[in-house]
Amino acid sequence: MPDEVLNDISHRRYNPLTGSWLLVSPHRTKRPWQGAQETPSKNTLPSYDPKCYLCPGNKRAQGDSNPPYKNTFAFVNDYSAVKETQQDYHPETNKDDVASLLLQARPVTGRCYVLTFSAKHDATLADMTPEEIVPVINTWTRIYASHLSPSHPLNGQAAYVLSTIPENPDGEVTPPKHQLKNMQIFENKGAAMGCSNPHPHCQIWTTSTLPEEPGKELVNMRKYKSDTGRHLLDDYVKLELEKKERLVWENDSFVVVCPWWALWPFEVLIISKRHVRALVDLDDKERLEFAQAVQEVARRYDNLFETNFPYSSGIHQAPLDCTEEEAETSWFHMHFYPPLLRSATVKKFLVGYELMAEPQRDITPEQAAAKLRDCGGELYRKSLQ
Amino acid sequence: MPDEVLNDISHRRYNPLTGSWLLVSPHRTKRPWQGAQETPSKNTLPSYDPKCYLCPGNKRAQGDSNPPYKNTFAFVNDYSAVKETQQDYHPETNKDDVASLLLQARPVTGRCYVLTFSAKHDATLADMTPEEIVPVINTWTRIYASHLSPSHPLNGQAAYVLSTIPENPDGEVTPPKHQLKNMQIFENKGAAMGCSNPHPHCQIWTTSTLPEEPGKELVNMRKYKSDTGRHLLDDYVKLELEKKERLVWENDSFVVVCPWWALWPFEVLIISKRHVRALVDLDDKERLEFAQAVQEVARRYDNLFETNFPYSSGIHQAPLDCTEEEAETSWFHMHFYPPLLRSATVKKFLVGYELMAEPQRDITPEQAAAKLRDCGGELYRKSLQ
Ligand SMILES: O=P(O)(O)O[C@H]1O[C@H](CO)[C@@H](O)[C@H](O)[C@H]1O
Ligand SMILES: O=P(O)(O)O[C@H]1O[C@H](CO)[C@@H](O)[C@H](O)[C@H]1O
Repeated sequence: MPDEVLNDISHRRYNPLTGSWLLVSPHRTKRPWQGAQETPSKNTLPSYDPKCYLCPGNKRAQGDSNPPYKNTFAFVNDYSAVKETQQDYHPETNKDDVASLLLQARPVTGRCYVLTFSAKHDATLADMTPEEIVPVINTWTRIYASHLSPSHPLNGQAAYVLSTIPENPDGEVTPPKHQLKNMQIFENKGAAMGCSNPHPHCQIWTTSTLPEEPGKELVNMRKYKSDTGRHLLDDYVKLELEKKERLVWENDSFVVVCPWWALWPFEVLIISKRHVRALVDLDDKERLEFAQAVQEVARRYDNLFETNFPYSSGIHQAPLDCTEEEAETSWFHMHFYPPLLRSATVKKFLVGYELMAEPQRDITPEQAAAKLRDCGGELYRKSLQ
Repeated sequence: MPDEVLNDISHRRYNPLTGSWLLVSPHRTKRPWQGAQETPSKNTLPSYDPKCYLCPGNKRAQGDSNPPYKNTFAFVNDYSAVKETQQDYHPETNKDDVASLLLQARPVTGRCYVLTFSAKHDATLADMTPEEIVPVINTWTRIYASHLSPSHPLNGQAAYVLSTIPENPDGEVTPPKHQLKNMQIFENKGAAMGCSNPHPHCQIWTTSTLPEEPGKELVNMRKYKSDTGRHLLDDYVKLELEKKERLVWENDSFVVVCPWWALWPFEVLIISKRHVRALVDLDDKERLEFAQAVQEVARRYDNLFETNFPYSSGIHQAPLDCTEEEAETSWFHMHFYPPLLRSATVKKFLVGYELMAEPQRDITPEQAAAKLRDCGGELYRKSLQ
């Protein structure tokens, strides 16, 4: 800890990726805790569930059947948040018309995929080995590569990965005819994060617009670059490797840190050490090392409170349709936002003050990182089985 | 609905108060719903709970006893998120030092209050009459008035309300010696919003810094004013009174709308019709009419799914320490963010895509407003008792 005093005083920290502040109240963890204490949970799910719409061979809500897939399987979400084709809408904007200023809307089209991580209903990324996670990363990479715009600066890399990563024998998705702007890969894990099916899977939403969060990050990384001549996340990775107090784990290609500006109690960021702009920049070794990093995070999370740890995670990388400058400004990273604070049942609520005034956290990111550093080793469930 | 097509296509809407966009997917509500259907819940709480740390006469966690108060009672939170006095911290900032750019922290001091709404353990704002809510608003007003800076442009109004609204016979809070910048009044209601004690109460956090949300609103309202010469919320209120489709309820002094840019399924905004800068601007009639508006929202919420409806609410108004220009830019309003979407048990999760990419909602604000317009009338629980 560079400034010991930050362990004790309430303070704000700055998130340079989004350009906003959050409130940190470290002394609040000194509150007595009378909440429930859980006993370690065993995984009691079957490895195949005939009622699961994601298990191999099963029927989905709208009648389609899943193939008897081996690892990953991607399909268009039966209830997508955005549609590929819809009625046109071109609102008039007129500076003198109050309604056109205060009631602004713009159409969004796109396509949403669901992607399974494993054929096994009861697997999670924490249960899988890095080698078993590689097919997931390969599929992410192929899907991203196949959706790039014809003029994308990473087309050379995309062509290379599409010719070297084998096609999924259980089927591939074909991109929509209309070029889309952005691809957001994300996982909601656990009922606490709105996930209704425990079968391991993520979602991939592609949209015609650049969403708020990656948009803000691009703006702030661009500004940092023009102010300093350097990349924000390049500087940040070097700083964390030197300081060590927020470092959870590293390998040759990636660092895992609880970022200085973490909001969620055990928030984690995986950042590439070299300048990787998107999945297609990763080589074979790096994809394996990314799988290792993801596995480390998932396993440490589960070990922390000896539970199936809920979280939302997501990858930020270069947009599907972007300029050379935007691609160069992008720096591959993956966020993990887990709600648990004190135990398997006590979560941090981001509610009244957080929604109306400013995000607020209790334990410091340094305290969180120290705990996550300490819970490597075998997955706690292994010894219970 | 000005553009019928927005009922069917996915689109983004612009929030002019925060300057950000959100994704609206109206067609998503056409998803089949197999979730639970609840039966109307009766309120089964006692009106006095000897174990509740908020009931009159009871002991609190740190040993203090509550007075035998009649309506409201305010005290300093035993576990405040910010402290009044703490060690100094003056970080050095140096443009050439990467750590001072990427690891920024600033001290925050302040004081957090808890304020009960009623002596009755089992009351909620929906059960209380507007006349019973007036003491709550009076207390908010006196606390706000007594915390203003010596040079505050609303000091005249503050002196007037302090001399006309009677003191709380059960005790008043005295402001801290160090002038603070902002006061955030907010309520977390229901376990779904992180509230652990059903005794009706809110919190009031005062801080030495202006938090993110009111800060963003000031920036955007200022910009609108300098662009158009008019106040953003003045224009917006007039627009909603003319369009009617997002209007839930109104009286002489306030409108209740589901704002155009609502994120939460049944999000509501109470806005003053005339230019009220802060609580101290309200006269006796307006405080009663504000109580009526709050009561309408709380009762309609409970009636909607015949349940004790969870939400977080909060008031935005002029900061405690501000310039004439900042006070003039402020426009009194109260946000309500409720998580329920389909029924008493089905909530909207703001998770993966929302956290990583962009806030997303399913039903439109116009659909939500129509439902809330239709559920006025007596509180559903009354006829069950
Ligand atoms: O202060 P309480 O009621 O203990 O806590 C609740 O409200 C706070 C302010 O929104 C949040 O920070 C907490 O996560 C929530 O549980
Ligand atoms: O798409 P699902 O799994 O039905 O839905 C889940 O993830 C979505 C994307 O974060 C959210 O909008 C939903 O609220 C959540 O329940």
